[in-house]
Amino acid sequence: MASSFGQLFRITTWGESHGGGVGVVVDGCPPRLKLSEADIQPDLDRRRPGQSKIVTPRKESDTVQILSGISTTGLTLGTPISMWVKNEDQRSEAYSEMKEKFRPSHADFTYFAKFGIRAWQGGGRASARETIGRVAAGAIAKKFLREKFGVEILAYVKQVQRLIADVNPDKVRFKDVEANIVRCPDAKTAEKMIRLIEKMRRAGDTVGGIVEGIARGVPAGWGEPVFDKLEADLAKAMLSLPASKAFEVGSGFGGILLTGREHNDAFRAKSGKVFTTTNRSGGIQGGISNGETIFFRTAFKPVATVMHEQDTVDESFHNTTLKGRGRHDPCVLPRAVPMIEAMTALVLVDHALRHKAQCG
Amino acid sequence: MASSFGQLFRITTWGESHGGGVGVVVDGCPPRLKLSEADIQPDLDRRRPGQSKIVTPRKESDTVQILSGISTTGLTLGTPISMWVKNEDQRSEAYSEMKEKFRPSHADFTYFAKFGIRAWQGGGRASARETIGRVAAGAIAKKFLREKFGVEILAYVKQVQRLIADVNPDKVRFKDVEANIVRCPDAKTAEKMIRLIEKMRRAGDTVGGIVEGIARGVPAGWGEPVFDKLEADLAKAMLSLPASKAFEVGSGFGGILLTGREHNDAFRAKSGKVFTTTNRSGGIQGGISNGETIFFRTAFKPVATVMHEQDTVDESFHNTTLKGRGRHDPCVLPRAVPMIEAMTALVLVDHALRHKAQCG
Amino acid sequence: MASSFGQLFRITTWGESHGGGVGVVVDGCPPRLKLSEADIQPDLDRRRPGQSKIVTPRKESDTVQILSGISTTGLTLGTPISMWVKNEDQRSEAYSEMKEKFRPSHADFTYFAKFGIRAWQGGGRASARETIGRVAAGAIAKKFLREKFGVEILAYVKQVQRLIADVNPDKVRFKDVEANIVRCPDAKTAEKMIRLIEKMRRAGDTVGGIVEGIARGVPAGWGEPVFDKLEADLAKAMLSLPASKAFEVGSGFGGILLTGREHNDAFRAKSGKVFTTTNRSGGIQGGISNGETIFFRTAFKPVATVMHEQDTVDESFHNTTLKGRGRHDPCVLPRAVPMIEAMTALVLVDHALRHKAQCG
Amino acid sequence: MASSFGQLFRITTWGESHGGGVGVVVDGCPPRLKLSEADIQPDLDRRRPGQSKIVTPRKESDTVQILSGISTTGLTLGTPISMWVKNEDQRSEAYSEMKEKFRPSHADFTYFAKFGIRAWQGGGRASARETIGRVAAGAIAKKFLREKFGVEILAYVKQVQRLIADVNPDKVRFKDVEANIVRCPDAKTAEKMIRLIEKMRRAGDTVGGIVEGIARGVPAGWGEPVFDKLEADLAKAMLSLPASKAFEVGSGFGGILLTGREHNDAFRAKSGKVFTTTNRSGGIQGGISNGETIFFRTAFKPVATVMHEQDTVDESFHNTTLKGRGRHDPCVLPRAVPMIEAMTALVLVDHALRHKAQCG
Repeated sequence: MASSFGQLFRITTWGESHGGGVGVVVDGCPPRLKLSEADIQPDLDRRRPGQSKIVTPRKESDTVQILSGISTTGLTLGTPISMWVKNEDQRSEAYSEMKEKFRPSHADFTYFAKFGIRAWQGGGRASARETIGRVAAGAIAKKFLREKFGVEILAYVKQVQRLIADVNPDKVRFKDVEANIVRCPDAKTAEKMIRLIEKMRRAGDTVGGIVEGIARGVPAGWGEPVFDKLEADLAKAMLSLPASKAFEVGSGFGGILLTGREHNDAFRAKSGKVFTTTNRSGGIQGGISNGETIFFRTAFKPVATVMHEQDTVDESFHNTTLKGRGRHDPCVLPRAVPMIEAMTALVLVDHALRHKAQCG
Repeated sequence: MASSFGQLFRITTWGESHGGGVGVVVDGCPPRLKLSEADIQPDLDRRRPGQSKIVTPRKESDTVQILSGISTTGLTLGTPISMWVKNEDQRSEAYSEMKEKFRPSHADFTYFAKFGIRAWQGGGRASARETIGRVAAGAIAKKFLREKFGVEILAYVKQVQRLIADVNPDKVRFKDVEANIVRCPDAKTAEKMIRLIEKMRRAGDTVGGIVEGIARGVPAGWGEPVFDKLEADLAKAMLSLPASKAFEVGSGFGGILLTGREHNDAFRAKSGKVFTTTNRSGGIQGGISNGETIFFRTAFKPVATVMHEQDTVDESFHNTTLKGRGRHDPCVLPRAVPMIEAMTALVLVDHALRHKAQCG
Repeated sequence: MASSFGQLFRITTWGESHGGGVGVVVDGCPPRLKLSEADIQPDLDRRRPGQSKIVTPRKESDTVQILSGISTTGLTLGTPISMWVKNEDQRSEAYSEMKEKFRPSHADFTYFAKFGIRAWQGGGRASARETIGRVAAGAIAKKFLREKFGVEILAYVKQVQRLIADVNPDKVRFKDVEANIVRCPDAKTAEKMIRLIEKMRRAGDTVGGIVEGIARGVPAGWGEPVFDKLEADLAKAMLSLPASKAFEVGSGFGGILLTGREHNDAFRAKSGKVFTTTNRSGGIQGGISNGETIFFRTAFKPVATVMHEQDTVDESFHNTTLKGRGRHDPCVLPRAVPMIEAMTALVLVDHALRHKAQCG
Repeated sequence: MASSFGQLFRITTWGESHGGGVGVVVDGCPPRLKLSEADIQPDLDRRRPGQSKIVTPRKESDTVQILSGISTTGLTLGTPISMWVKNEDQRSEAYSEMKEKFRPSHADFTYFAKFGIRAWQGGGRASARETIGRVAAGAIAKKFLREKFGVEILAYVKQVQRLIADVNPDKVRFKDVEANIVRCPDAKTAEKMIRLIEKMRRAGDTVGGIVEGIARGVPAGWGEPVFDKLEADLAKAMLSLPASKAFEVGSGFGGILLTGREHNDAFRAKSGKVFTTTNRSGGIQGGISNGETIFFRTAFKPVATVMHEQDTVDESFHNTTLKGRGRHDPCVLPRAVPMIEAMTALVLVDHALRHKAQCG
């Protein structure tokens, strides 16, 4: 269904940008995991607007509340975990012009075409606020994967427009990612990225880029042979994020420049453990993890809301123009990092449980 | 589930490379669609081994048989349509060495890690033969979409290694695609591609590339807002194909080089119909079709089986080497074209029915 | 998944008896349905504790709040509708003995066996409070079915212990059901039922019975041929309600006393409309509605909590005894009526959308 | 979806009574289970027409063929197991009158109302031949449950019309069930049942009854708290069988005659193991198994096809009459026994895997 993700560790998100709030129900979480709001809030803080000078200044504390699924002793019960965040800083007036006009390259027109109605304030369900539920649920998944399997999930900004960071997926650390506001572990490039984003914001324009996501410590054997290949579910997860346009795993598009001989990852064994000498497969072969670091890249287009007059049409299908107003991100990448981590964790935890069910 | 795809128009494929055969069950197909094997076979012939000098010479007629779901008058009954193809040209001996050794960058090791057992003959379930069921089911979906909605689905080879074709997604025709054995509608580049693939085959090496898929005539409104975005389901569909490593829709990775002002697709209206003056969105905005041509690209890595000795390990996790034998494709792209079309059709028909259910 | 129901009109409930509250997310509701809390609250009031002298005196206003999915103009947006009710009258102390002991014929032991942990206060997730989400979602489904298809859904108490009501499923009206506190449209039997339940309450004992559910105006053609037969989904829906033990549709268990000749419903046609002269099929044939009144019966066991000492074991698996305390229903039937209606509506709306998708 | 059942151990059946054949795809079966046709055929033989004088004389050997999912060493691969049975004894001419007329209390009219088309030969998809796939898949599930968990699944005829067998669910043995052709382990009553069915057959009439299904050795903890309660999924499974009209678990409808004090199952512990002194719960409490014997009853109506003229309508909706022809069962019960076992096994194996995934 449209608002649910996962088969065994299944989340269902709800909520519009403007309205009571946004939230998520997590069904299928294993019981007896220590869990409280303190496990969730840090990732929401990394996703939050207003966290730095290069993201939207919208003021939302995004304080999460857990409503169900936890015992009085602070353990998961195995029943649905319902979490929500109240909407606070809603300024519908900033959107009043959008009541009649479709923002270019936004979802206004397509929602209207589909549903015959739309929540024009703040983009409604198409708002990035919808990802709050994902990030909250992903924090649970990350904790479970870390404690139960030793899996470590990370994401970071790999590229902003033409600025490309130099990062080693096998070695990068969380603290290096969080060391700067753009969330790029290559400090020098990070500086340039921040300057570029600020320049864009001042120009009323926006910029896109690439986030790289990684998972270390995934045991060999997670994933499925055919439709639910690990890379297929990761691709779906990433392309379901707002503003994402592309996905590649391992060698990705670049891999096509090599021949088969050059591209193949040789297997070697050491002390009864199999590994590959290169990792163009990105840790996944035939849809199933092979024990190497899983890594992939997701491209995010430049944010559609720009502070310039642009051609568009209104709800009566007449030509008009529209100039962006309100408080918007000049670049989604720093806030997309925790989203990528969350979606990665949700894919992996689901496959971990599926693997246990059939083959465990 | 691993071997099923789609929610309302749901297919379930089965079968290994070596064994009784491969097949598919299509559940949820609307009733009273005229259908016979003659609607299915042409796409299977385009997928078939042995069809030209640049694909594997394995001899399989891949003749489809419909076992259920059709009335005596040749119409779909609305009940499951079961189709299958017998395996014919099985030469297990060509794979005997693989009984003990894992082929590099294949699924041998990961299947073994997951299931503790594997069908080593011909790759078993990881064989491209699994896609027969997809292509057969996709032919039904294509026919339904064409007859009921006027939707036209096409795919073609866009790039082989560094050879890039010049194709206009809005104008390319099926007969241009089928005009040559590499299935690239740019005749000049097609020639070069064929020569490159032949050269690779002679060298015992392989090569990858990009297939572009398009859908024309999709009405605005298909798709879903959040997890089941049209581009997310397309990404999953494409990344579930063997050897695929990357996906991009519309401007894709290239779009990040533009700023928001440059990237946005302006809306215009004419005679009460809305359109965009550019199509960097690739026909999808916020997960929902906007009425423009949907187009996307999928990268396929160079085929893993090369006719050269390569480092690998055996089932006892000892180091060894393996040299490819048997009959293999030097490049999957020409045969991937009907697979891409099939998966595109399966995604779209499912969303067409879902849209009708909720909003029709 | 455990906490979701429905394929296209899908609900996910959450919440324990004691905790923040209970709620539901409704995904897949068609857009542009007029909807507000005023459409939901009446059914919650019929389900509410404290509504009469024959139900538990627990004090819960059960005031519903809609958090998402509704436009500022009061129409459904087609996006998830999140609703919740705060828990108010929680008296954990009434349950303190149950912290250590399993209540006989309750879910305490089995939850503990499954999850290794349990929310012992008020039965946690096994509490009838979980049904609040179902009733709230069912109210939306009922409204949609009524306005869009003219389908009328009703339930009423058919039997309490040995007291059997005389009711005509084709003619019974909502106001007759609501005319008394036991929700039995046969006024005379209703009086006896009320006296019996009061007697049981005074004796610290409990009593069970049968609720009959009906749906009038369902067009021929809803349902599915094989596993998702309409009666199969109704059976699952009813058996998923707390304390239910049996289900029968149409002639049910009684039908086995007739021979085929006696049992068959003859078809007749009048003015181009087909009907049956009897309705032992209960409005469903081969899993699909035939246009006649759908009717079925669900048995609810006597409530397990009795105010008498009973043998049981504690969490250390030692023998002990337990006497019921707290505020409990002497008979669930009056409050089960809106639950049966809700589950019936949820099954039918899902099949209505599924039918439209494939055959509409 | 209509033709699929189960979430993790998922089966998809296909096929009409007349046509190429009927079959099933089993997806999600754990790997490395020893499996061959010899494990499947015995249950198909118990379901087969022509097996005795009290079932239809239609001649079908129903020989199963496994097409995929098994290794050359005879073990399941963890990939889809495709099985099918060819249709052999098809006499369409026996159904020619039904081409135009709807059989009373059959699915002819409702299929036509739903799909606008129907396979009139032999009832098409509504034929009991559809259950071949279920029985074949159920045989795998039974084997897995027996070998992996020591779970024993049995069913037997409990009642034919007014003839009620005396059987102890905790002690009844398979060989007692198979000791006579009606599959009733109470030998004396079995004799009477056989005579009654033969009498009915001679009179061109039919008779219904009750099958009891049991599962012994199910560990405490299988099942789910809310919608997917074990009894709910069993109810759905049983009501999805052709001709079934009612389901009850444990005390069922009869339980409403007791008060709560009388009905409750007292817990006792012995050597660290919890059990109940009575079993009115039928082995399930709050949707989850409690370790006691699971038992339930399913009612099957008298077969609709009788050899007497009956009122009906034709496809043009004109009144007419129809007299049953062809070869039909005077009573479905003996052949329903393996179907009940199969559906029970499919429900339990799915919950076994789900339990392992979340709580194992």
